[in-house]
Amino acid sequence: MTGSLFQQIQQFYARQMRLLDNGAVEEWADTFTEDGVFDQNVAEPLTGRVDIAVASQKRVDQIVAEGITRRHWLGMLEVDPEDEQGVVHTRYYAFSMATERGGRPRITASTYAEDTLVRHEDGWLIRYRRVTHDGTD
Amino acid sequence: MTGSLFQQIQQFYARQMRLLDNGAVEEWADTFTEDGVFDQNVAEPLTGRVDIAVASQKRVDQIVAEGITRRHWLGMLEVDPEDEQGVVHTRYYAFSMATERGGRPRITASTYAEDTLVRHEDGWLIRYRRVTHDGTD
Amino acid sequence: MTGSLFQQIQQFYARQMRLLDNGAVEEWADTFTEDGVFDQNVAEPLTGRVDIAVASQKRVDQIVAEGITRRHWLGMLEVDPEDEQGVVHTRYYAFSMATERGGRPRITASTYAEDTLVRHEDGWLIRYRRVTHDGTD
Repeated sequence: MTGSLFQQIQQFYARQMRLLDNGAVEEWADTFTEDGVFDQNVAEPLTGRVDIAVASQKRVDQIVAEGITRRHWLGMLEVDPEDEQGVVHTRYYAFSMATERGGRPRITASTYAEDTLVRHEDGWLIRYRRVTHDGTD
Repeated sequence: MTGSLFQQIQQFYARQMRLLDNGAVEEWADTFTEDGVFDQNVAEPLTGRVDIAVASQKRVDQIVAEGITRRHWLGMLEVDPEDEQGVVHTRYYAFSMATERGGRPRITASTYAEDTLVRHEDGWLIRYRRVTHDGTD
Repeated sequence: MTGSLFQQIQQFYARQMRLLDNGAVEEWADTFTEDGVFDQNVAEPLTGRVDIAVASQKRVDQIVAEGITRRHWLGMLEVDPEDEQGVVHTRYYAFSMATERGGRPRITASTYAEDTLVRHEDGWLIRYRRVTHDGTD
């Protein structure tokens, strides 16, 4: 991975969300650390790649069954390096968009999220993700 | 603030709009210069931090009363430095998204905007913002 | 054009899509190479600047007639330089938003796209663009 830290993280997210949107669930789970946590305020937290992959596969299967194309957009990104050791904290907004066959795109969720990323080989992995869905308590 | 000019501005906007969306109205107003102008084609221009804070507080109060979470997204950003003295012109698109409790996100406004920013200490301030709302005359 | 490759491409897209959204159809067509291809899965591929300009003008005329403001948003960008010679491959999501006079913004299309860009003088040109619209076969 080349470019500044900010660009590396931007492109990490582009690739990461594309994997999920394309249904490449194992590669998506591999963007988390082995013990990575995916914590959303609308579900029980998922811990580790297997849990993340299993839950994501279930959701992908539903979406495929419904003939929906899903796209995750991230934006309004801030990147704060914690130290020189390769730990980075991010904050961002994300929304998901769903398009049924022959239908118009609909925004299905709007969220605020915070990640902790760690450097791994020539890239990055998510150690902890906390997503808060708008419109929930 | 670190990173290239473009990244500084991107993250300035991420933080700036997050302040507004979180209802931190005084901190939001402080992202403008003392005599900063916030000029939208759908309202009288606001001049200075106090006017900006008062008008924004009014809007935030409405949104809170309605139980809405609001998110501002900026994108399609161009950054043009005017000179070496720290004056920068930007152009971008922005939309706002609103989610009611238990509801689906709706896009409430689509806009085109131009800002003039000035360097201040280790960051940036808005000296002039002009926002044009789509669908208005 | 200054800044890193990634920033150059980001701002190229911001300017490029703004030209189309503003109805500056010839300047938009000039962001493609002379023999550039604009290939969407919902229409016959357009080859060369004249074809691109003519088809785009037709669409712009419709939109103006309907009193609509259109905005194209690109995001989730990845930029991969092919070589040192100035050939670059990109992948991104894009959506278009339409606002009628007095109306609320609607997302009219969600897409996945891949471009091949080539360096030209101090900027970039699109040599090949492939856009896949969600919800189509």
